[in-house]
Amino acid sequence: MSTRLVEELATPALVVDVDVLERNITRMSAAARSGGFTVRPHAKAHKCLEIARRQLDAGAAGLTVATVGEAEVFARGGVSDLFIAYPLWVDDAKARRLLRLAESVALRVGADSVESVQRLGRALRGAARPVQVMVEIDCGHHRTGVVPENAVAIGQAAVDAGLEVTGVFTFPGHGYGHDPQARERAARDEEQALGDAADALRAVGIAAPVLSGGSTPTAGRWRPGVVNELRPGVYAFNDATQLAIGTCTAGDLALYAIATVVSTPAAGRFVLDVGSKALGSDRSPWVRGHGYLPAFPGAVVVSLSEHHATVTLPEGLPAPRLGARMAVVPNHVCTPVNLADTMVAAQNGKVIDCWSVAARGANT
Amino acid sequence: MSTRLVEELATPALVVDVDVLERNITRMSAAARSGGFTVRPHAKAHKCLEIARRQLDAGAAGLTVATVGEAEVFARGGVSDLFIAYPLWVDDAKARRLLRLAESVALRVGADSVESVQRLGRALRGAARPVQVMVEIDCGHHRTGVVPENAVAIGQAAVDAGLEVTGVFTFPGHGYGHDPQARERAARDEEQALGDAADALRAVGIAAPVLSGGSTPTAGRWRPGVVNELRPGVYAFNDATQLAIGTCTAGDLALYAIATVVSTPAAGRFVLDVGSKALGSDRSPWVRGHGYLPAFPGAVVVSLSEHHATVTLPEGLPAPRLGARMAVVPNHVCTPVNLADTMVAAQNGKVIDCWSVAARGANT
Repeated sequence: MSTRLVEELATPALVVDVDVLERNITRMSAAARSGGFTVRPHAKAHKCLEIARRQLDAGAAGLTVATVGEAEVFARGGVSDLFIAYPLWVDDAKARRLLRLAESVALRVGADSVESVQRLGRALRGAARPVQVMVEIDCGHHRTGVVPENAVAIGQAAVDAGLEVTGVFTFPGHGYGHDPQARERAARDEEQALGDAADALRAVGIAAPVLSGGSTPTAGRWRPGVVNELRPGVYAFNDATQLAIGTCTAGDLALYAIATVVSTPAAGRFVLDVGSKALGSDRSPWVRGHGYLPAFPGAVVVSLSEHHATVTLPEGLPAPRLGARMAVVPNHVCTPVNLADTMVAAQNGKVIDCWSVAARGANT
Repeated sequence: MSTRLVEELATPALVVDVDVLERNITRMSAAARSGGFTVRPHAKAHKCLEIARRQLDAGAAGLTVATVGEAEVFARGGVSDLFIAYPLWVDDAKARRLLRLAESVALRVGADSVESVQRLGRALRGAARPVQVMVEIDCGHHRTGVVPENAVAIGQAAVDAGLEVTGVFTFPGHGYGHDPQARERAARDEEQALGDAADALRAVGIAAPVLSGGSTPTAGRWRPGVVNELRPGVYAFNDATQLAIGTCTAGDLALYAIATVVSTPAAGRFVLDVGSKALGSDRSPWVRGHGYLPAFPGAVVVSLSEHHATVTLPEGLPAPRLGARMAVVPNHVCTPVNLADTMVAAQNGKVIDCWSVAARGANT
């Protein structure tokens, strides 16, 4: 790469501020250590080996991923301890891939039904090392996962199928929101649901020592002694949603798209050459607009087409000139990363590296 | 590829029903021909050479793209007439790329400011063939483009800069909506704005013979004699938004993600292994939910995480079994295509080819 300054990159491009990234990673690791938690970051937010290595160097016990394909990429990249935190439905092809993975890494997989662990058991007979099952619990987000009392049937089916039950996990998606009380309540829900499920398993003789919770908003809000593992993802980058709900400050935003003003068609409005094909279209109810402009905090990205971000300015604020360049922080980092083949690693405005989004599109 | 049936594909995968695709392409071409319009399909919806070739074979005059990068991909693929329908801001690097493109293809570019055409003129001095400028007009969508009377200053600046002004173009994004009257009004707005702009240019001696309009919802709604070129994109596939606003039927849906039921955690709810990382998160106000399930028309995809689609069923309707597979039609085709490296081409449930999304991520 001949470009040496972020200012010279063809736009739009995704840029990682490496200093902020490393500070975010170090801070989460230190907080976890002082709280007595293991950190197992969710790699779906970055899908990038260079960032995974920084997380492991800072003390992460392993990585969390969402798909077998992501696990394969990180295993090839040298990560030796992987948790596929997803209720896998294993067909013959997926079974072969899991068996191959188990040859090289310590592997955990999620499950939330008796049928799925029975299939897993059949599929993983003959695995090089035992593949560990984590039972998914619904703590109030109502996506996947079972209510705590139903963990027992799944745990017993797993044991009957010759699998090892290592613990229980949950995702507190209902902890996203403006209200810090919502995050507190979600953290309590996680503790309660994971604790109840582990107790129920223990009552039938299944130890399930790992109690694994989310998430960037609820991390650090647990009381000691129940949850013992955390799986935050977004925290490495943060984004406009985390900024809006108050779990980070503007100084903690490590990922942005660099964009160019291509049109100033009317007073109070300008258009950037970045759209949903680079930023994604995620929009939580807590953010205003489709991205955050650090250079124009009062501006609102009122609409996002595939290649256009239309920005309106507060009255009286002059529009930037045509050709001006600026950073746009995405609402939710996970989608833009999955749209990009590479991220530019930068320090103080200088390009220091180009990182492959190695697990981009590894959806199966 | 050893897989021979859509039923055997690892999920999630994007699948194109080739029969429906070809019917959609043929129908648009026939309608354009009978109305006396040139068709220049917008390739951002498919980004795929195999589909571009079908559009050209059916009579398209050339292709529309959104970026220089997309133009490069289609030029390399043999497409010889390309319109970058975007107000380009040309720096030195982009100027070099445009000059190279102009060596092999007939090239049109968009512009909506005096400054941008002055830069274009400097950049394209010495081009192998004249690069044609299309002035972008705002017909009511209020994104890029100028009001018709401002086309004159841009046209004159283009002529002064040694460029050829070929016409005017607009995108009637405000024509999306449930109300067929909104589409009619947007089609009238297109005619009026393009006609006024072309008249104003003609009054200062600039012919601007091409009057180019959108779009899948407004195509075919113009009166003869004003607009003479159409640039629809989504029509080749259609999607849940087009279905909701009534511009297509369920039989016209050519693109879907094939997904597997991975969780049936509670009565009336099931979860598919497809999420925003395969379907995108676009959600227009006119659709209910995050995708359309042809096999369960009463079901609603109530939420989409990165790898989960959570579906609720009307009371009394039994959930599908774990492991069942079904099609999910995305809300908006442009984003899922841009997330995928390949699309599976299928006919009657049989895989007949694997098409590269050749221009995926070509955002600069």
